[in-house]
Amino acid sequence: MGIRDVFAQNLKTLRLARGLSQEELAHRAEVDRTYISSLERCVYGASIDVVDRLAAVLGVEAADLLKRTPEQSGS
Amino acid sequence: MGIRDVFAQNLKTLRLARGLSQEELAHRAEVDRTYISSLERCVYGASIDVVDRLAAVLGVEAADLLKRTPEQSGS
Repeated sequence: MGIRDVFAQNLKTLRLARGLSQEELAHRAEVDRTYISSLERCVYGASIDVVDRLAAVLGVEAADLLKRTPEQSGS
Repeated sequence: MGIRDVFAQNLKTLRLARGLSQEELAHRAEVDRTYISSLERCVYGASIDVVDRLAAVLGVEAADLLKRTPEQSGS
């Protein structure tokens, strides 16, 4: 699984766990709503600056958003 | 400490631990030597694609390159 997929999955999982819409997350991280949507669809490789800003809003470390879960690492 | 500094420090520390020059790391990760130098000086916010490629060459996970050490987290 590529790093964009890992990031997209972690981002979406955490966003939903926090009860945030793409709009609300975008607003709090000061990025465009369509950008969040694109990141969750692996359209772009986010910069670490954006990863860090999103992590801060979600209450985690930037590294957490790039962490492969055991399922993501498998095969 | 900002995420670019964290990444720059981790990158340089691991590169030196592997005994790699900026040139050699750049060559193996298929990026320009000046780009490695820029990343270690926090000039750019690397994309997660580049972070992942560098991590692979260094034998770590992408997340490891964004991890704050206790010293980096402090104050």
